[in-house]
Amino acid sequence: MLTEAASGVYVIAVTPFDDRGRIDEASTDRMVEFYRDCGVTGITILGMMGEAPKLDTEEAIAFSLRVVKRAGNLPVVVGVSAPGFASMRALSKAVMTAGAAGVMIAPPGNVRTDDQIAGYYDQCVAAIGADVPFVIQDYPLASGVQMAPSVIRRIVMAHPSCKMLKHEDWPGLEKINAVRGFEKDGSMRQISILTGNGGLFLDFEVERGADGAMTGYAFPDMLADVIRMQAAGKRDAAHDLFDAHLPLLRYEQQPGIGLAVRKYVLKRRGAIACAAQRIPASKLSKAAHEEVDYLLRRLAARDSRAAGLSG
Amino acid sequence: MLTEAASGVYVIAVTPFDDRGRIDEASTDRMVEFYRDCGVTGITILGMMGEAPKLDTEEAIAFSLRVVKRAGNLPVVVGVSAPGFASMRALSKAVMTAGAAGVMIAPPGNVRTDDQIAGYYDQCVAAIGADVPFVIQDYPLASGVQMAPSVIRRIVMAHPSCKMLKHEDWPGLEKINAVRGFEKDGSMRQISILTGNGGLFLDFEVERGADGAMTGYAFPDMLADVIRMQAAGKRDAAHDLFDAHLPLLRYEQQPGIGLAVRKYVLKRRGAIACAAQRIPASKLSKAAHEEVDYLLRRLAARDSRAAGLSG
Amino acid sequence: MLTEAASGVYVIAVTPFDDRGRIDEASTDRMVEFYRDCGVTGITILGMMGEAPKLDTEEAIAFSLRVVKRAGNLPVVVGVSAPGFASMRALSKAVMTAGAAGVMIAPPGNVRTDDQIAGYYDQCVAAIGADVPFVIQDYPLASGVQMAPSVIRRIVMAHPSCKMLKHEDWPGLEKINAVRGFEKDGSMRQISILTGNGGLFLDFEVERGADGAMTGYAFPDMLADVIRMQAAGKRDAAHDLFDAHLPLLRYEQQPGIGLAVRKYVLKRRGAIACAAQRIPASKLSKAAHEEVDYLLRRLAARDSRAAGLSG
Amino acid sequence: MLTEAASGVYVIAVTPFDDRGRIDEASTDRMVEFYRDCGVTGITILGMMGEAPKLDTEEAIAFSLRVVKRAGNLPVVVGVSAPGFASMRALSKAVMTAGAAGVMIAPPGNVRTDDQIAGYYDQCVAAIGADVPFVIQDYPLASGVQMAPSVIRRIVMAHPSCKMLKHEDWPGLEKINAVRGFEKDGSMRQISILTGNGGLFLDFEVERGADGAMTGYAFPDMLADVIRMQAAGKRDAAHDLFDAHLPLLRYEQQPGIGLAVRKYVLKRRGAIACAAQRIPASKLSKAAHEEVDYLLRRLAARDSRAAGLSG
Repeated sequence: MLTEAASGVYVIAVTPFDDRGRIDEASTDRMVEFYRDCGVTGITILGMMGEAPKLDTEEAIAFSLRVVKRAGNLPVVVGVSAPGFASMRALSKAVMTAGAAGVMIAPPGNVRTDDQIAGYYDQCVAAIGADVPFVIQDYPLASGVQMAPSVIRRIVMAHPSCKMLKHEDWPGLEKINAVRGFEKDGSMRQISILTGNGGLFLDFEVERGADGAMTGYAFPDMLADVIRMQAAGKRDAAHDLFDAHLPLLRYEQQPGIGLAVRKYVLKRRGAIACAAQRIPASKLSKAAHEEVDYLLRRLAARDSRAAGLSG
Repeated sequence: MLTEAASGVYVIAVTPFDDRGRIDEASTDRMVEFYRDCGVTGITILGMMGEAPKLDTEEAIAFSLRVVKRAGNLPVVVGVSAPGFASMRALSKAVMTAGAAGVMIAPPGNVRTDDQIAGYYDQCVAAIGADVPFVIQDYPLASGVQMAPSVIRRIVMAHPSCKMLKHEDWPGLEKINAVRGFEKDGSMRQISILTGNGGLFLDFEVERGADGAMTGYAFPDMLADVIRMQAAGKRDAAHDLFDAHLPLLRYEQQPGIGLAVRKYVLKRRGAIACAAQRIPASKLSKAAHEEVDYLLRRLAARDSRAAGLSG
Repeated sequence: MLTEAASGVYVIAVTPFDDRGRIDEASTDRMVEFYRDCGVTGITILGMMGEAPKLDTEEAIAFSLRVVKRAGNLPVVVGVSAPGFASMRALSKAVMTAGAAGVMIAPPGNVRTDDQIAGYYDQCVAAIGADVPFVIQDYPLASGVQMAPSVIRRIVMAHPSCKMLKHEDWPGLEKINAVRGFEKDGSMRQISILTGNGGLFLDFEVERGADGAMTGYAFPDMLADVIRMQAAGKRDAAHDLFDAHLPLLRYEQQPGIGLAVRKYVLKRRGAIACAAQRIPASKLSKAAHEEVDYLLRRLAARDSRAAGLSG
Repeated sequence: MLTEAASGVYVIAVTPFDDRGRIDEASTDRMVEFYRDCGVTGITILGMMGEAPKLDTEEAIAFSLRVVKRAGNLPVVVGVSAPGFASMRALSKAVMTAGAAGVMIAPPGNVRTDDQIAGYYDQCVAAIGADVPFVIQDYPLASGVQMAPSVIRRIVMAHPSCKMLKHEDWPGLEKINAVRGFEKDGSMRQISILTGNGGLFLDFEVERGADGAMTGYAFPDMLADVIRMQAAGKRDAAHDLFDAHLPLLRYEQQPGIGLAVRKYVLKRRGAIACAAQRIPASKLSKAAHEEVDYLLRRLAARDSRAAGLSG
């Protein structure tokens, strides 16, 4: 079960499809092993970059069960954000029964004031049960919801089952300090903070106090290395490695086509058999393909993991 | 099957729940009979006011099947808007197999340019099948999507299975003329136009060329009468009846609590056994209850259908 | 100077232009006299319906000075919402020097959390000065900002110069009770609450505790009468009068073209010489003109003030 | 006067203030010389990053005149986006009279459909005059307006005075190809395309066909070098230089505090005397200052221009 001690990389997994749009089960298994070999400490599925809304309920549950089973002792967090609590409850119950470690919930866009946000999470906990560990997803760029640090504290203090903040406000470095400050002044119990935003600020986020990353960059092994180096006090080496990846990481972080880049690189790395997305799908043009290949070749000169990956 | 000749009132049905939040099957049947007795020409279910997002997939299908079966020769339109095409396809297939007359689709908020809107409906038709009659739901206040008349024309001309526009732009009277103008100048084939917005402008919408209403005001019999009177050339009488209802209709059209008002009045009229909503639910305060009762008493003086309904 | 005892109708004034788009000074004077004769207790200028963004700074100041001078002992509130504090300060200073009673400020759309909203008003007061009486404009439909009752209390308690809430949340009846409840439980000093939204719910707003209306419906004399009747305990008579106007009031409340309706009726009533708006302007089609005339003729049968106004 | 042949770097200038919030005239002059020494080909003022909304009209005009005068033969583009056409016309007229090369206009957020966007620019040209060269600012992240390539073509073909597209859609690489494709297939005359988004994708944007950058990164000399190297066919060298700056450039591109970073670096480089912003101002925390200093030290190892800049 997910705890407030979680750290490292909880990779946002893609959902592998074949060329006809069916979930690719063999690739699902292979992907889990790939992530494990990358040194991740957890796997998050059915997030926004996991094409969750494109699955129907049965598929979502079947995919979750397969990942949980394969992951074994690797904890799996499942995104259960839904427009209504009936669907949220049903999916949450199904995946927790199957062995998921916890669930992740982002507020809908019409939830605005501090009271509304706190009240929304009250309703979520009533729906999924107070025994299900959950993650607050704080992603204003996608959700439109601005969550003040004091609101995060309210949710954490109201619900012992809140174990983690997925932090992807932007800019968000000061927010990490603010939340950690509540822990230091004793006004909030400690929780895990993992950061998102495609990893674009991970180099500094861990210096500010984040416990790690929850994002899906196609080199999660790099993310894990940066976190480990920082923990070991090797600041410059951590930045050197991060900066080597930044041109590609930035390219992958583009809204929309970023997922196509990510799946393409994961395919080149052997994690999945096919880079296809379900419609509505973003696609890489010939020029974009060449740009990714160029970035991979440049990266290979600085990180051997990228050697031989360009198309 | 839904055709472009559809007219009259396609009432937006509520979803009846009991006090514990379960779908009330007996009330579902009773509600269908109530609407039939009101003189509606069709029923629309799983719309925004039908609490569709609060149902899980199984419930949505079961509810649809029950309504379709009970409705008999009364056509049923089912809202199938969904964040992904897999869910849309699954729900659409299930309800059409069960005998629904057609489906209704609103675009998601991230679809913005004319090309994106037209392209979105292309993908919808690919997902649900070109043989499934569908309704364009044009509701900018809720969806955030502004659909120009020329875009509606593009969709209609690209897809013979588009049979109807649910028009609830606001202000929208000129849009009715614009779309009807395309039919007159031969640039677009004829479709059915039913109007929404809680009926707030129905008095003039039918004069502008709408074929009727698709909305859920708790007196759909009044809506049907107004449409019939206008068709019969009784303009002043139609406005007299409409104006008598306007204070209550306006009150019911409030975002959020409007549905609580509607369910309360439907319960008073005997259409459903319980006014409860699933959470997140809007609730009527004591003051609001008294206001609705006051409006009903005032209405009773001008329309006998409201006699004896106040709490 | 504006105080918390303000009540009645603070009419949202239009800005009169001639056919060439110049401010019509003679009509400005005439309009002030018209409003005075309607029994308003104050005038609000440069609001959203006053086409404020279409004036340049010099024009805005000149127009304000003219209205203030003509209004004499009738208090004038000036909308000074601006994207930056420099403009807000400059306009506020100019109009207060000229004799305005206070200013009105709505938050910009990027202000979201409770702290951000309260902090924004702190900055406003720093900019305009703590001696300038101000009105909080709470209009989520236009601003996108959801202001919880507790945030309104924070602003009121932090700033003695906050004298009034312009309430146009929708639905908003419960919010009036919530704010009045703070006064009753002693957690907030009393302020004036005037309501907007085109007057669409004025009948019940005054029953809930509002002190009056701040809106621009073209029959402000009706609004004043309704408020007076309610204060005198003549509830049914107040609703009868309100309901007689509701069909037109609803028509005038349409976003965009509502202002064209309002200016047309004000011209028919002799308040201004010309109904033109500055671009970007909404225009009434021939059909819309006829609809307004029809509504005026119907109204004339129930309120003699509308007699002879249709085109 | 601005022409479609414009290329290179049109730097988005900051507005220098002193510690008391007054415009710093000496720094204004010094900044223009700094930018000139960096090799920019033009200067853009009163953009979003120029704190334009914080200036009142008089200040905006005075600042524009000073920059234009000092810039001499360096073309100056002035942002004139405004909520109303009266202000847009007044500012445009004042700066063009003073010798500005052209103006830049972004659409307001309520302009949505293709027709509305094209119509809005028709009204702009009517307001500022058909003889004033203008730039379309296409920045959906800030404006909320999605502008399809075909709409850009409509504006360009309708208005000979449209000389440039400031491209900052994101992702936007394919959009450059789409617009250039219209030129190649003869359906659109050629215009200048300069890119924004803080330069985050400049490395590939120039490869896709952009003529340069219009952005304000604190090392505009780097931007100019990258564009020059790419034009000279030195692709790898261009990317090497760009990648060396990417960690800082990414840091500066954060919404809100990015401007504080930019002004801090510009101050360190001697371009301005004081990094202060007018309120509402973003501020750098101690931790953020140290991070920028760390990034500058790391940059200095790869680009001597950064030597000795850290605090």
